Formats: sequence, structure tokens, C-alpha cells
Amino acid sequence: MEIVQERDMSKEEKPESMSLYPLGTAAAPEPELLCIFGTGDLGRSLGQRLLQSGYKVVYGSRRPHSCGPVPQGAQVMSHTAAAQSASVVFICIQREHYGFLEQLAPQLKRKVLVDVSNNLRKNLYPEANAEYLQRLTPEAYVVKAFNTLSAWALQNGPSDSNRQVYLCGNSTEAKEAVTEIATRLGFSVQDRGSLSAARELEDFPLQLFPLWRLPLRLAFGLTAFFFFYLLTRDVIYTYATQKKDISFRIMVSLANKVFPIVSLIMLALCYLPGVIAAVFQLYRGTKYRRFPDWLDRWMLCRKQLGLLALAFAFLHVLYTLIIPIRYYVRYKIAASTIENQTSELDTTIAWRSDSYYSMGILGFGLYVLLGITSLPSVSNALSWREFSFIQSKLGYLTLFFCTFHTYLYGWDMFLRSSYYKWYTPPGYMLSLLVPSVVLVLKLLLLLPCVDRSLTRIRQGWERTEPQDDSQKSLIT
Amino acid sequence: MEIVQERDMSKEEKPESMSLYPLGTAAAPEPELLCIFGTGDLGRSLGQRLLQSGYKVVYGSRRPHSCGPVPQGAQVMSHTAAAQSASVVFICIQREHYGFLEQLAPQLKRKVLVDVSNNLRKNLYPEANAEYLQRLTPEAYVVKAFNTLSAWALQNGPSDSNRQVYLCGNSTEAKEAVTEIATRLGFSVQDRGSLSAARELEDFPLQLFPLWRLPLRLAFGLTAFFFFYLLTRDVIYTYATQKKDISFRIMVSLANKVFPIVSLIMLALCYLPGVIAAVFQLYRGTKYRRFPDWLDRWMLCRKQLGLLALAFAFLHVLYTLIIPIRYYVRYKIAASTIENQTSELDTTIAWRSDSYYSMGILGFGLYVLLGITSLPSVSNALSWREFSFIQSKLGYLTLFFCTFHTYLYGWDMFLRSSYYKWYTPPGYMLSLLVPSVVLVLKLLLLLPCVDRSLTRIRQGWERTEPQDDSQKSLIT
Amino acid sequence: MEIVQERDMSKEEKPESMSLYPLGTAAAPEPELLCIFGTGDLGRSLGQRLLQSGYKVVYGSRRPHSCGPVPQGAQVMSHTAAAQSASVVFICIQREHYGFLEQLAPQLKRKVLVDVSNNLRKNLYPEANAEYLQRLTPEAYVVKAFNTLSAWALQNGPSDSNRQVYLCGNSTEAKEAVTEIATRLGFSVQDRGSLSAARELEDFPLQLFPLWRLPLRLAFGLTAFFFFYLLTRDVIYTYATQKKDISFRIMVSLANKVFPIVSLIMLALCYLPGVIAAVFQLYRGTKYRRFPDWLDRWMLCRKQLGLLALAFAFLHVLYTLIIPIRYYVRYKIAASTIENQTSELDTTIAWRSDSYYSMGILGFGLYVLLGITSLPSVSNALSWREFSFIQSKLGYLTLFFCTFHTYLYGWDMFLRSSYYKWYTPPGYMLSLLVPSVVLVLKLLLLLPCVDRSLTRIRQGWERTEPQDDSQKSLIT
Repeated sequence: MEIVQERDMSKEEKPESMSLYPLGTAAAPEPELLCIFGTGDLGRSLGQRLLQSGYKVVYGSRRPHSCGPVPQGAQVMSHTAAAQSASVVFICIQREHYGFLEQLAPQLKRKVLVDVSNNLRKNLYPEANAEYLQRLTPEAYVVKAFNTLSAWALQNGPSDSNRQVYLCGNSTEAKEAVTEIATRLGFSVQDRGSLSAARELEDFPLQLFPLWRLPLRLAFGLTAFFFFYLLTRDVIYTYATQKKDISFRIMVSLANKVFPIVSLIMLALCYLPGVIAAVFQLYRGTKYRRFPDWLDRWMLCRKQLGLLALAFAFLHVLYTLIIPIRYYVRYKIAASTIENQTSELDTTIAWRSDSYYSMGILGFGLYVLLGITSLPSVSNALSWREFSFIQSKLGYLTLFFCTFHTYLYGWDMFLRSSYYKWYTPPGYMLSLLVPSVVLVLKLLLLLPCVDRSLTRIRQGWERTEPQDDSQKSLIT
Repeated sequence: MEIVQERDMSKEEKPESMSLYPLGTAAAPEPELLCIFGTGDLGRSLGQRLLQSGYKVVYGSRRPHSCGPVPQGAQVMSHTAAAQSASVVFICIQREHYGFLEQLAPQLKRKVLVDVSNNLRKNLYPEANAEYLQRLTPEAYVVKAFNTLSAWALQNGPSDSNRQVYLCGNSTEAKEAVTEIATRLGFSVQDRGSLSAARELEDFPLQLFPLWRLPLRLAFGLTAFFFFYLLTRDVIYTYATQKKDISFRIMVSLANKVFPIVSLIMLALCYLPGVIAAVFQLYRGTKYRRFPDWLDRWMLCRKQLGLLALAFAFLHVLYTLIIPIRYYVRYKIAASTIENQTSELDTTIAWRSDSYYSMGILGFGLYVLLGITSLPSVSNALSWREFSFIQSKLGYLTLFFCTFHTYLYGWDMFLRSSYYKWYTPPGYMLSLLVPSVVLVLKLLLLLPCVDRSLTRIRQGWERTEPQDDSQKSLIT
Repeated sequence: MEIVQERDMSKEEKPESMSLYPLGTAAAPEPELLCIFGTGDLGRSLGQRLLQSGYKVVYGSRRPHSCGPVPQGAQVMSHTAAAQSASVVFICIQREHYGFLEQLAPQLKRKVLVDVSNNLRKNLYPEANAEYLQRLTPEAYVVKAFNTLSAWALQNGPSDSNRQVYLCGNSTEAKEAVTEIATRLGFSVQDRGSLSAARELEDFPLQLFPLWRLPLRLAFGLTAFFFFYLLTRDVIYTYATQKKDISFRIMVSLANKVFPIVSLIMLALCYLPGVIAAVFQLYRGTKYRRFPDWLDRWMLCRKQLGLLALAFAFLHVLYTLIIPIRYYVRYKIAASTIENQTSELDTTIAWRSDSYYSMGILGFGLYVLLGITSLPSVSNALSWREFSFIQSKLGYLTLFFCTFHTYLYGWDMFLRSSYYKWYTPPGYMLSLLVPSVVLVLKLLLLLPCVDRSLTRIRQGWERTEPQDDSQKSLIT
């Protein structure tokens, strides 16, 4: 092996003027030989790409002479011969057929085995494919890698969301060897630690927005509920009482009532679990006891709740801004202009109308700011003090602006009985419930005495402790 | 060399209780000495920064006593003396003058040579500068690095888009030494593999949006074509037939016709190559034959096509939203209000108008979502299953909404001959051609029988294969 | 130590067929034992997380038998015994209590000490905590790490802005050991070089938008000034001269005058320092002399200035778009429609009004593009040539569009004396001062003769040099 020789040579010489052990050869190395077990689609795709990147490729096959086509330039050998010729072996075989590798274990000793396999479902097997492979070949260096890429990316190189190769394994040097190959293929590599992370990597390609499911279901549920609620109150009520068909209002007017309602409720639901968690901690007097499962799950999807709320707010803004170019609105304005020639400018209404819009715009501006700071690259650039300042302080300010915006929309409507059609309250009133509760609770938590207790608990203090507390934060 | 001694010492002692070879000294090391060949602008800038970061710097010069000013604190020596004093040498010399390094090869043996050079044009030389340098000094460890930074960043430290140092080289340890220096200067480092990547790194600073050229040209071409087409049909036609100057409509009305047309066509052009590729694969019965070059190039710039389409859609939205505050529109509305006092509310028009706006808003919302997920940090956080779900499924939904939005805009206009001025169809009709074709083809591809064949082909099955296909996806 | 044995074994065998030194064990390693000094909140949080990730944890305590609760499954020993049992020791003690570690120095020899401490203020101590620790235990391998995470993240694992562990230290192998642990806990690691970077890491969690302070103060100052200026000119003037209360205009009309004014001035202030720097370089005839401190600081916060300007522009756009749905505006339009039945369409006004909106929209579109390219993940993906093309060329184009938009707004207002209420100029005129100066200066700098000098200076040429200049950019 050329690389080994180069290393040994450098050890013999013991250069005086050089502070680096020459691990690689200095001159461009000979094209390295890599081995691939399996000539299925994955093996073919990978081999083609490796050949294009300047490697030599040898396939290991059970029937070297009748194994179907392999990419031009690659050799096919028996598994044993192929394994012996290279120091890195890609296992492009389905897990069910791993069994025969146990007999090859002696030949695979000290080889780097790259497990690229995926399963069709989660939890199909008790252990990860890569861990199973390691058990079969205990003296090989198993590295899980490349499995998060699509077959397309394996064949054609990196593209969006196929740029990163995650790898894990117990041998640092084996991981370095695979890193070198992945880098040469154009991917960037992220090391995810020891082989125990293999299951996580194998589950990754199967996932389809796991953290978004709960928030999405909630959003659909709320949207559907308020849509039918408002449909009944607005369109059906009008038809039932006045025999007038205003169903065309579904497309814009109704949508523009549903969207802001759902947005406000979901924004409030982002901040509710934090308030509940604080109440739990105050009540229990410690931060070391776990929260109930439902609260944990809720807190984990706050970001997704917030982003969906932002999406609904965005739609609300657009639906609001097209109001004046709608045919119906133009018709109404023209009609009222012609009829209504004598009214005076009412400065109270002007104040209220302008404050209403102003609050909405400022709230939306902060909303967008919250959205931007939750972009991965932005939030990674912030210290957590900065991040929590924006997401907590500015977040509550956003919630306040949006709630105030909705109160201004309501104004004195709640006093007039004509708005309680069929004894139901208008939608905006329902939407104000959760945010009002959250804001009131938050205000209570900010009371100096409550805040002081909470801060102490979050610094590790425990109320139920029998021992002296004063020494808890000191050294022991 | 202090570091070498430290290492040797640790080997002699063979510590029992320690699982790590102490590679570096534990205490803060003496300021390391680095060598720079060349006292031009680049050498001076780099030297200044290295000195500020706590390194000692020695310059190697052909005329050590008359080489012009060097940063305060640096020494100047002959090339030979400078090379011998340090283990890392930065080559801040233009490639044309590399020749003399061949004679210095013995002194540069086992040194890390950092090639920071760039060329003025691509493909100026048959081999990359760093590979040429390696050929001249075969026993040195050449690392290509720092060349993607601006001279400003080399002198003043990292800033936006000057934060990342790309490096490549054949020796891992040499790359680690350069990584250490780059990190100390405040940069973050990305290893791009062996020295064969040097050409790519040398081309990087020269590039100016290579993938954006084709889409930008297309966008300009389409914009120009539709601008003159609509200018003729609207402004010139009106002037020719009614002698009325409505040229002021160019600024907003005309622009707001051109932008959505170009946006819709370009969005459809994002999805057309995928459909064409599927047809190719179905026709050929294999996925292993390369697509024609034009299709490959087209598919590679789909993201850019889509983002430009989004930019045009964004402008269309803004141009639409300012409609009601335009002087011309206010004038028209006031005039029509006064004249037209008797019309009834037409619910069909209300339905159509509201659906039209609603489709547009939903389409734009999805458009923005597609744009957000193509931000590098977002797409890297998605699994490719998630990414392809958004870009493909939601992408087609976006195209459908936007096409439907345009059909609603047209409504029954195509039936009235007055809209075919000078026998030309209105612009919106032309814009509907490509999206309609794409949507129809996509629907055909979704037919169960077609879909099944395509899925098999994409899993590696080949129709023209003489051998038994059933075994293709099994191990061999 | 198992790992050491594995390594030695591999050296004895000298495998022929293997090109990698097996650094780690191939099979899944035994749960590693880690030591934590200190049983305060931080020590408990970290220990809990380490136990959950499969490590064994032993606490070192001054009073092993009365040290308060530790997480279930962890042991407590004396400092000496704990230190001897593990090769990695986490120091979860406040800096003031580090003193006793000096006596433990022999036991900590060749151990990896992870300093996770933070201070309450910057510059509280002359040296970084980690450097102080290294001084106390000169033969240990001190690594600064984990201090940028919140205690919540240490206990519960990575979350937004708590995903990255920064570490620094003088020993590469010690850093690798800590990297392995951090990766196993789910964090991704960024190496920041030698221990001299510790102070930077210790300051990081304390920072709260340091680069945003100056721009934010400027934005608040400008907003306050223009708010009171316009309040006086518009609302108070009207009240004083006509006894009419138009205070309701504060919420939207006034805000929508203040926001664009501040936005335009701040956008111009982004480009002013670049122009001033060029004038400095031209005047001095060299690029190697440092700029005055105020200019350096100004140039460093250009990005923040620009993003704040974009935020104000965004608010301006929203405030403008809601104009037609405001009660006051609808009232005014209805009133004017009724009164004003005879006016003709004025095409000059139509041209001006449409151009005004068009310039604004195009300017805002470019503004948004500038904002998107300053997202970290986008700017990192651009070469600096691309980045400077966008931020400089397109930036000046944005400034031009926005300035032109404001001039079109003013039109011939400056000629009419009625606009100079109480002898003060309207706000838009004041806002045009800085951008006009910047654009004129930039035009002067683009004159061929000036541009040529500047380019030479920026390539390293110096005017005041007595020696021959022709050789400066050649090798020496």
C-alpha cells in the first residue's frame, strides 16, 4: 500500500526541520481503488460517480461473470478478491442479504465498511443496519454514510438538500477516510459521532416534517372550525333571514376573517406552553422534575406553530391589501358615495381606524422579524441571549400588538346585540380568548415577587430541599 | 522545533493514565514563525494580518535589502534563509514567476507551501497554479488556500462572504496546519479534498453568477418581447386608431402586464425539463443513459429560473397593490361613480373577481414558500424527501394556482373579437401556453400505468435488457 | 485504558493490507467515564445530559458525602479520586473558586480539562477563565467549550441558536476528545483555534447585538427628530393657524412620512463611509494607513444600517398600501368625487404619479434583494466578487431608485412657498440631502482619471514612495 509506505519512510527519516508528520503523500496520489459490494441500482449509481471523480472501482459479486452491467471502467470480482484489493468497501446491499458477510469477516478485518443502506419503514429491525453489520464483522471499521442522499444525488453529485453527507462510526480514522471520499465527490461532511447514531441517520431520509404534523393538524382544525362557524354566521344566516345570496364573500371576505383568527390563536399557542411551564416550576418549586409529556411535545413544536401563524398572517395581509381593488368593494363605495353626501368626518373613527391599521402593521413587522430570526443560518449566528431576547421579549410584543389590533377591530361591537347572530359571538371575540389569557398570565409572572422566585428556581434552587440552599451554587 | 520535542517527550513517557497523545503543547505556544514569499500587495496584506494575530513573520525576497516596505515587525531574508526558518511558507507570487521555486525545491522539502494565487481568466494555463507548484516542488506539501478571499479580507479579517476559507491539498497534516492558521485569523475552514480540487478553487473568485446567466438572459428576452408586444397592442394601437396618447400607462399598467406574464412562463419553464426528462426515460426505457446536454444544462438552472420567476411575481404583487392609489385609477373611479348610478351588483362578477384574487394570493403564498425553502440554510436542514415534496408537489400546486389565476383573469375575453387588436391575441393568452402544456403532460405522467413504468425505471430497471430483470435489485 | 491498548496493539501488528491506523475501537465502546467538578446547577444539568447520552459520570466534590443531590446514576467522590478515574474533567465551578485546582495539578496532569465557565460582565478579570485555569494546571490540556450554550440546552440538548458548540484549546487531541463528546450530545462543533480565543468565547454569551447598537441609536434618533419636526409642521401648525385638530394623522400619515425619510437617510449612510474611505485613500495616496477610528466603526456597521433601513422601507410600503382602505381617505375621496365633477385627466400628473410608484417599487425590490443576500447562508454561498457586485453595484442602483422616487414625490413642491410652513422645509427635502451628496461623490469617483488612481492605490501602489513603483507588484 503506497500510503503506508510513505508514512513509514517519513518515520525513518525523522526530519529535523519539519514539525508535521507527513500523513499523506505530497504528490498527487495514484487513483485510489474502492470496492463496492452489490451491483444493484445504488451500487451502479455510486460506482459511476466514483469513477467520474477519479477513483478506480471494483465490484464484489456472488456471480462475477453474470452479474449484469456495471459502469464502464469498473472491474467485477468475487467478494473475497474484491475485498482484498481495497481498503474501503461500500456495502450497497439490502439488509436482508447481509448474512453472507459473516463468512467474509476474516477478509473484511481492518477494512472500512461503508453502510449506505436505508429501510422502508422505521423500527423495522431491532438494531440499526450499520450496527447489525458491525456485529457480523466485528473487526471491520463500519461507517454509516451517504444514506441520507437520494440515488439521484449519488449518481449526479450534490444539489440542494443533497449537499451534506452525515456519517457516524466508532473509528476516527475510518471516518476520515470516508470524509476524504465524500469531499472528493463534492459533498460536505458532518460527523455525527459514534455508530450508536446510525439509527438516527437511517431514520432521517424517512422523515416527512415530523415536527410540523401537530401544528399542521392544529392549523387545519382551527381553519375548518372557523370557516364553518363564520359560514353559518355570515352567509347562511343572511340567506336564512334575508333570502340574500352573498356566497361570493367566501372567497375573500370569509377567508380574510378565518386567517387572522387562526393566526392570532396559533401565535398565542406559541407562548402558552412557556407560561404553563413557569407555573409548573413555581408550583413544584424545582426545575429538575420533568414536565408532563404533552407539555414537552408542545414546547418542541413552538417554532413550527409560530411559522404557521406567520404564514396565516401573511395571507391576511395580502387579503386585506387587495380589498380596494375588489369589484364588490368598488361597487359598495360607489353606491355609498352617491347616496351619502352629507356626513361629517368623525375624528374618533379616524383615530380608531388608523390605530387599528398601525397596530396591525407594526405587529406584522415584528412577526416577520421573528420569522427571519428563526431561519437556521440567522439563529445560528445569534448568541442564545440575543435569540431569547428576540423570541421572548419581541415575541410578547408581537402578541400584544396583534391582540390590541384585534381589540381595536372589535371596538364597541361587543355591546351591540345585532352582532350576536343566532346568539353566537363574532369570530374575532373567540380569537381573543387565548391571547388575552396568555398576556394576563405573563403579566402576573412579571410581578416582582413571582419573578424573583422563578429566577431562583431556574438557577437551580429547590424549595423542597431539606438541606441548606445557600451553598447550592457554590463549589462542593 | 518545540512542537516536535513536545511530541517526542510524550512518547518516551508513555503515560498510563492518559488516553490522548499530546499533539500540541498544553501551555500557550510561543508565537509561531511563518514565512511569506513575495512582498507585493498580497504578501503585505497577509503579513500585516498574521502579525496582528500574534504570529511572527519573515519575508523571503530576491533582494532582501531593497525589496520595498514590509509591515512593521516582520523580517526580510533571502528566500533560502526564510524557507529554512519556518515550516509553513505562503507563496504570494504571481504564477508567471513561480519558476525560481524549482531551484529552491531542496529547501522547501517537507515544508507546507500555501498557494494563495489567482489568475485573471479561467483556463489561462493547462494546470492549476497549485498543481504547477506541486510539480515544481514535488517533496513539499502544497495546500491551496485563502485565494477565495478578497485582499481586503486578508488584511482586515473576515466579513460577509469572506468568512470561509476553502482549502485543498494531498497531505492531511499540512491542511491541518493551514486550518489552524486560518482559524486563528478568524476564518472558518472548509476542506475540499485533494489538490485536484485546486482548479475549482482558483476558478471560484472569477465566477459571476454562472448559473444565473441563462435564466437572466431568458428573463430579459421575455421581458423585452412582451414589453414591445404589449406596447404595440395597447399604446401604439390606441394612438393609431383613436389618436389618443396613453403612453403614461407604460410605467405601471404595461409593467404590470409584462411582469406576471414573464413570471408565469418562467415558473412553467422550471417544471418543463422535469417532464421532458421523464418522457425521455420512458421512451428509452432506462435511467442510465445521459440526457442531451441542453436538457442537463436546463435542469441545472431550474432553481435560478424559479427565483427569477418569484422576483417577477413579487413585482407583480406590488404593482397590483398600488393600483387604487394611482392618480389615473382614482380619476377613472371618480368619473365612473358620477356617471354610473344605476348598476346592480353582479354576483357572478363578484365571484369571479374574488376567486381571481384569492387564487393569486394563494399562488403567491406558495411561491414565497418555495423561495424560502431554496435558501441554502433551509434546504440543508431538510431531508431530500421533504425537499422534493415541497419543490415538486407544492411546486406543481403553485403552478396550478397561478395558471388558474390567469385563466380567471381571461374569463370570457377570448370570445370577444375586440380583444384581438390587429389580429394578435392578448398577452395573457400567450403566457398560458407553456404552463398549460406542462400541467397536461404532468397529468398524463400521473396516470397509474405510466407512473408505474417510470417508478420502475427510476429504481434501476431497464426495458432493453436481455438478461433477467428480476434479479437486478438484489445482491449479486 | 482501553483506547490506548487498542492503539498500541495496532502498532505492534503493522497490518499489511490496511492503510489506516485504527485510532478508535471498531466495536461499540464501553460507556466512557467522564468527571465533573462541581455539583451546582451547571454540573447537575450537564451530568444529567451526559448520563442520558450513555456516558458514566462521576462528580468530584469537596464533601463527597454531603454535597447535595446529583443526577441518578452518577457517583460522587473526592476531587482527587474523581480526577484519577477519568481522562476528561468538566470544570463546572465559578472562577473565584478555581484556586484549589492548583493543588490538584499533579492529579490533573495530562487530563483534558473542559472549562465551561462564564462571567457576569466583560473584562472582569485580566485574563480569560480558561487561560487562568491553564496557568493553575500547566500540564493539563485545557479546552474552553460549552460556555456559549444556555443551561437549558445543556440539560435538554440542542435547540435553535444552541446548536453549535464553540471550542478552543492548545491541544488538538484534547479538542478532538471534547468534539467527540459534544457530537454525541447532538451538538455540532466549531473549532476556534488556540486557547487565546477563550476570551472571545467567554464574551460571546454576554453580547446583546453589539454591532446593532450604533445603528439602532441612530435610527431612534432620526425617527424621534423627524417625528417632532413633522408633528410641528403638520399637526401643530394646522392647529395654530386653522384651529383644526388633525391629530389622528399621527398614526398613519405622519408615520408614513417619518419611515421613508429615515429609511432613505440610513440607506445613504450605508454608502457614505465607502465614499469617504475612497477620498481618504486618494488624498493620502496609499491604502496601508489605517482609517480614523470613527470611520472604521462606521464601516463595520454598514450591514446593520442597511437592514434597519430595509425594515423602515418595509413599514413604509405597508403604510402606503393600506392608504385606500383608511376611513379618512375614503371619506376624502368620496367628498372630492361629489364636489369635483368636471376635471380633465392630466397626463403629466399621470406620468409623474405612475413613475413615482414604479421607482418606489423597483427600489424596494432591489432593497429586498440586498436584504436576502445579507442572510448568512446566502452571503456565504457567494464569491466575494458576486457579493460585492450585489452590495455595491445593485446597492447604488437601489439608492438611486429611492432618491429618484423621493425627487418625483417632491416634483415642483419646492417652488411653492406655501410648503415652507414657519419657514421650515418639508421633511422629504431634508431626507434628500445625504443621498444626493453620496450619489454626486460616487459619480465623481467614477470619473476615469479618479477611478484609475483609486484602482492603483487599492492594488498596493503608493504615491509617496521614493523607490521605483514599477516593481511593487512583482516578485522581489
